[in-house]
Amino acid sequence: MKSLKYKSGVLKLIDQTKLPEKLEYIECSTYKDVGRAITGMVVRGAPLIGVCAAYGISIGAAAFKTSAIKSSSNKTISDEFSSKEEFFDNLRQICVFFKSTRPTAVNLFWSVDRIYGIAVSNKAKSINEIKDIILKEAQTIESEDISTNRAIGKNGDALIRQDSTILTHCNTGSLATCAYGTALGVIRSAHESGKNINVIVDETRPYLQGSRLTAWELKQDNIPFKLICDNMSGHFMRLGKIDCVIVGADRIASNGDTANKIGTYALAVLAHENNIPFYVAAPTSTIDFTIENGDAITIEERDSKEITHIKNLPIAPEGIDVLNPAFDMTPNRYISAIITEKGVTYPPFDKNLGKLI
Amino acid sequence: MKSLKYKSGVLKLIDQTKLPEKLEYIECSTYKDVGRAITGMVVRGAPLIGVCAAYGISIGAAAFKTSAIKSSSNKTISDEFSSKEEFFDNLRQICVFFKSTRPTAVNLFWSVDRIYGIAVSNKAKSINEIKDIILKEAQTIESEDISTNRAIGKNGDALIRQDSTILTHCNTGSLATCAYGTALGVIRSAHESGKNINVIVDETRPYLQGSRLTAWELKQDNIPFKLICDNMSGHFMRLGKIDCVIVGADRIASNGDTANKIGTYALAVLAHENNIPFYVAAPTSTIDFTIENGDAITIEERDSKEITHIKNLPIAPEGIDVLNPAFDMTPNRYISAIITEKGVTYPPFDKNLGKLI
Repeated sequence: MKSLKYKSGVLKLIDQTKLPEKLEYIECSTYKDVGRAITGMVVRGAPLIGVCAAYGISIGAAAFKTSAIKSSSNKTISDEFSSKEEFFDNLRQICVFFKSTRPTAVNLFWSVDRIYGIAVSNKAKSINEIKDIILKEAQTIESEDISTNRAIGKNGDALIRQDSTILTHCNTGSLATCAYGTALGVIRSAHESGKNINVIVDETRPYLQGSRLTAWELKQDNIPFKLICDNMSGHFMRLGKIDCVIVGADRIASNGDTANKIGTYALAVLAHENNIPFYVAAPTSTIDFTIENGDAITIEERDSKEITHIKNLPIAPEGIDVLNPAFDMTPNRYISAIITEKGVTYPPFDKNLGKLI
Repeated sequence: MKSLKYKSGVLKLIDQTKLPEKLEYIECSTYKDVGRAITGMVVRGAPLIGVCAAYGISIGAAAFKTSAIKSSSNKTISDEFSSKEEFFDNLRQICVFFKSTRPTAVNLFWSVDRIYGIAVSNKAKSINEIKDIILKEAQTIESEDISTNRAIGKNGDALIRQDSTILTHCNTGSLATCAYGTALGVIRSAHESGKNINVIVDETRPYLQGSRLTAWELKQDNIPFKLICDNMSGHFMRLGKIDCVIVGADRIASNGDTANKIGTYALAVLAHENNIPFYVAAPTSTIDFTIENGDAITIEERDSKEITHIKNLPIAPEGIDVLNPAFDMTPNRYISAIITEKGVTYPPFDKNLGKLI
């Protein structure tokens, strides 16, 4: 099962809004299709939206045509020059567009900047060559994501004890990445290494990534799990039923402060109060060394209907006020370790995160 | 709006499973109807189920008929005696039945014991007189509940500052009691005294008492509120957006440990971590002086379908394992004060709760 498949200018994406009832792919043949899939949460998960944006830019760049190119037989040097400027203007617009799709996950910005950067550094080449370079870079980001997740899994596995019950939040699996997953990659890795683990999945309101997506992935992999509501995690921690908590990240500040799916902060505080290790698993591309701490991270506010309705079914009175922050920020003091593809980092994160790169 | 109405052997109850879409009453004309309404959460809320059980016993007792009573013209003293024994056997069975409907809220047990006790202390009277006494006692419990809630509201109001934002959990309003509410009674009282309060309502999965019931009550009363998901409370506490937390209780142990709707423990820990006062509002009938601490409280486990489905709509893969504890236990160290109709009690609760009665 692959969350995305790219072929000949078309990006096929599992429509995650339809899971677990239906496994359906949608086809994106324009960059705006890809943007809509990100904004509408057809795809979600910090690493995955980064890769989707990279392919989206490639699709947008490939569609670029100028009159000079169209009638390329008679083109002059100045035509070629003005076409290149037009191409890069267009490319910049597409990059700005993708950066506006969602504000919190830094992988999106990292991926867009990486694609734009490689295009700029090859500006001397022909437009068609640059288009190819952009596509190859998107494919490289995709394949790197898979090997990165395998490495995160292996590094994190070392922290998981035999016969552990692991609480996880949201979805950080194959559906949040190109394959395997980050926090769920650690869980997969511990399961594959024969550790007899059990998983507690919290449903992760309002979008239900836990019950709809993580439960679906774990069921497919035959990894034992139990589903709970978000407000039950503390209860099971207090009763000693949870041995560790592993979550992903949408953005990690230089000091280790971590923005992740709403509810993560509460889990971290509850784990801290009950002396349970709290791990963050993420690729180093999720670390934003441009910000000193988590206060600088923009928290996306999403539509109230995500809370007042489930699949268009109303579950609250009409016309009421709602607050719907999609993420929260967990201060570094609640985090026991950050697991990356380059190794496991421990506090003080402000000193140790920088050593990873 | 009254959550229950008793008239001539019929108990009418708002069907809380239908709210907020429909305001409908169901009619219970047998004690088993009342029991099913409690078990199926047509009515819920510790004080309300206590009152419903009282009326349910009255309905069950009133339906008692023996051959001796039926042909009472020729009855002998021994007939009268055996009928009385039969009546009390039947009454005990009904009481046992109601005690088995839900295990956590102590108000149910308190109410059943009170009804049974008054019947026993009037055993010398005729069966018809005892039937009347039982009904009158149920009516007394109902009217006491209303005055108790008004007193809780007034006592709690003294703790609420001007321009406060108050977080509340589950539903503790008119729908959880006979009128006005406990924790929501404090909020109503603060609003009525002109304190310019704002309420944050968490939806309270899985049964959505917050979004379906509390939001509905607050909207009717024009008390300003915003709805959030359970996993968002910590985020807003960390940001300093919440001035205090008020919840109800299903059972309070002698030392102040409090069982309440699942999710309460997490809120208490998060409030403690963020130096936010955490108040429990409940009638003294919720205090169980027979237990030393909260570890002795049975936590009800409810059907998995409450989590995997919303109104018969599946929101998780089929056939998965689920944990669904309906309540949790908050240790006394997280509770700033317990607000009762007899006054506000502060720690140490093991010493101070007993002084209330």
